[in-house]
Amino acid sequence: MTTPADPEALVGGPLDALTTPCVVVDAPALEHNLRLLADYFATRHCKLRPHFKAHKCVELARRQLAAGSVTGITCAKLSEAEVLVEGGITDILIANEVVGAGKACRLADLARRATVRVAVDSAGNVEELDRAARSAGAVIGVLVEVDIGMNRCGVPPGRPTLTLASRVAEARNLRFDGLQGYEGHVVQQEDADARRRGALAAMALLMETKALLVGHGLAARIVSSGGTGTYDMTGNVDGVDEVQCGSYALMDACYKRIRPEFRVASFLLSTVVSSRGTKVVADVGTKGMGCEFGPPLVEGFPEAKVLYVADEHTPIENVRAEVGDRLRLIPSHGCTTHNLHRRMWVVRDGTVEAAWAVEGSGCLE
Amino acid sequence: MTTPADPEALVGGPLDALTTPCVVVDAPALEHNLRLLADYFATRHCKLRPHFKAHKCVELARRQLAAGSVTGITCAKLSEAEVLVEGGITDILIANEVVGAGKACRLADLARRATVRVAVDSAGNVEELDRAARSAGAVIGVLVEVDIGMNRCGVPPGRPTLTLASRVAEARNLRFDGLQGYEGHVVQQEDADARRRGALAAMALLMETKALLVGHGLAARIVSSGGTGTYDMTGNVDGVDEVQCGSYALMDACYKRIRPEFRVASFLLSTVVSSRGTKVVADVGTKGMGCEFGPPLVEGFPEAKVLYVADEHTPIENVRAEVGDRLRLIPSHGCTTHNLHRRMWVVRDGTVEAAWAVEGSGCLE
Repeated sequence: MTTPADPEALVGGPLDALTTPCVVVDAPALEHNLRLLADYFATRHCKLRPHFKAHKCVELARRQLAAGSVTGITCAKLSEAEVLVEGGITDILIANEVVGAGKACRLADLARRATVRVAVDSAGNVEELDRAARSAGAVIGVLVEVDIGMNRCGVPPGRPTLTLASRVAEARNLRFDGLQGYEGHVVQQEDADARRRGALAAMALLMETKALLVGHGLAARIVSSGGTGTYDMTGNVDGVDEVQCGSYALMDACYKRIRPEFRVASFLLSTVVSSRGTKVVADVGTKGMGCEFGPPLVEGFPEAKVLYVADEHTPIENVRAEVGDRLRLIPSHGCTTHNLHRRMWVVRDGTVEAAWAVEGSGCLE
Repeated sequence: MTTPADPEALVGGPLDALTTPCVVVDAPALEHNLRLLADYFATRHCKLRPHFKAHKCVELARRQLAAGSVTGITCAKLSEAEVLVEGGITDILIANEVVGAGKACRLADLARRATVRVAVDSAGNVEELDRAARSAGAVIGVLVEVDIGMNRCGVPPGRPTLTLASRVAEARNLRFDGLQGYEGHVVQQEDADARRRGALAAMALLMETKALLVGHGLAARIVSSGGTGTYDMTGNVDGVDEVQCGSYALMDACYKRIRPEFRVASFLLSTVVSSRGTKVVADVGTKGMGCEFGPPLVEGFPEAKVLYVADEHTPIENVRAEVGDRLRLIPSHGCTTHNLHRRMWVVRDGTVEAAWAVEGSGCLE
C-alpha cells in the first residue's frame, strides 16, 4: 500500500483534513475506557490481560499497560506476539494453539526474548513445542485450554485436562503455568443475567478442573479467562487470575449495547461520494469495515437506514448530505475493522493528536 | 506486519512448507482462466478491462494484460491506481467517484504520469476534478456513471446524464471519454436467463443514453460495463466497448456456481489447530477470509459442515483430520479475501513457483 502523504504532516491539523476512509480514535473516550477498567481491577485479585486482537496497535497496548491493573498482553496469533515483542512488550499470552514445526521454532525463539505463554489442547502439539524449545534452549510457558462450553478449541474439563496438564508438566522445556478457559459462547449475550449465569457455570467447570489438578500436585498458578462482556462476572470468580478484555478499549456498535459504561472510542471517517434525494453512498464497504454483526451505525443520523454494505460502498437511506460531506460510521465489529487498517488517527477536540501504526494488521500467522 | 521468513526462500519448495493461513494460487487454473476470457474477446469488438479490485496484485494485472484482448486495467480506488502506476501499468480506469480536494490533486498528478480515467456522477465533483487538473497542468479522462438499475452511484439515464456529460465536455482540463454503467444488481443472479434479461435491459438504458449524447454532439467513445457474471451477455451488446471482469481470474465459491467454465484458482491453505472426533478447527477466520456470501467450502470434504466463522477460527464438523493437518478452504468471496493478505503463493504441481505481493491490500483511499 502506498502512503502518498506523510502522516506526521497531518498531526496537529484538523480531523477534517484526513483522507477517507480511515479509523479515528477519540482520545478522551479511549482514556475513559482504559481508566474505568483499570480502576475496576485495582483493588481486586483478578487483573487485566488486555487483548491485542481487538485493535492490533502496539501503542494502544502500551497505553493499556500504563493504565495499570494488568498482568501483560493477550494476543491471538504468533505473528502478533512477534510484533508485540518487537514493540517492547515483555509479557505475552498467545491465547490460541500454535501448531506446526516452523511456528513452534518461531515461538521458542520469541520465548528467549520475552515471557511468552501459549495455549495447548493436544498431546502432539505439546511434544512439538517441547522439541522446538529444547532446540532453541528456551522454556515456553503453557496454559492448557479447557473447553468450558464454547465447543471450539480446548480439552474437556476434568480428567482430560489433568492428563494433558501432566504431559506439559513432564515436558523438559515447557513450564506448566495453568489453565485458559474462554466463555466465548456467552460474552455477547444481551441479557446480563443470562450472561452472568452462563459465565458462572463455565467458571465452575474451570474451578473444578483447577482443584482436580491441584489435588494431583499440579499448581495452576494462572487461570486466564473472560472478555469485555463478562469482566465483572468472570473477573469476580474466586480463582480467576486474569481476564482477557479487548473490545473495551475502542468498543463497537455491538458491545455498546451490552456495555454502556464504556464509550465508543473509534469510528470510521468516510466521505459521501454520491447523493440523490435522501440516499447517499459512503466511500467504505466491507474492505474497510467489519460487518459480521450487522451494518454500521451512522453517527448523528438515528433514522439512517443502511441498505447494504458492498465491497467499497455503503448506500444509506434517510441521510441528507452532499457529495464531499463526511459521515462517521460506527462498525458493528471493531476487531475485524481495525485489522483492515494500517493506521489509526488519534483525535482530541477535533485536532489530530497522533498517527498510530496498526502493526498487527494482517498478522494472520 | 513482520515477515519472519524470506519469501524467496520458500520459492522452489513444496506447497506444504508454506506457513498458514495463506492464499495459494493454482497457476494452471489461473492460466486457464486468463486464456479463456482473452480468447473469448479476441474476435469481438468489445474487450476486457480486468478489475484489479478482485485480486489487488500488480503481477496478476500484468498477466491479464499479457493475455491480450484488453484495453487496460480497472480499479476501484485512487490508491489502487497509484500502486498500478507505480507498478508500470499505463492505462487505468478508476470505476468509482474520487471525491475531495486532496484526492483530486493526487488523481491529477497521476494523470500526468499515465492514462487515467475516473467515473463521475455529480457536477460538484466535475468542478473539483477540473480545478485540480488545471492546477497540475493535467488532463483527466472522465466517464459519466449512469445508474442503469443498481441504485447505488450514477446519474439517471437520459437527460440527467446528458446534462452532466455536457459539463464534463465543457471543463477545460477534463476529457469526456464516455459512459460507465454497471449492472451490479444482476451480475450474481444464479439463473442465467434472468441474468441475461437483466443485463440486456440495463444495457438498453445505457445505449439509449449514449444515442442521446451522440445526438447532441457528445461522442461517448468508451462505454464500460459488465463483470464476470455477464461478460458473454453485456460483452455482446452492440456499443459496449469494454467489460470490467475481475473475479474470473482467481474465482471463488460463489462465482463457481454461476461460471463453471472458469476454474477456482485460489484457495486458503490452513492448518487444523484443534481436533476432536469429527470436529476440527482451522486456523483462519474472518480476518483472513471474506465470508460475505457464506462460509467457505472445504476441498476434499464434500460433507464438511462449517459451524461458523469466527475472527481467527473456523470450526468444521464432518472432517476427520489431525492437529497439524492442512485444509484447503475456498472462500465465498474472493475480492474481500485477497484484500486481507499481503502475498499470494503461486503453486504448480505442488511446488511453489513464486511469491506475488498483494500491493493493493489495504488500499482503501
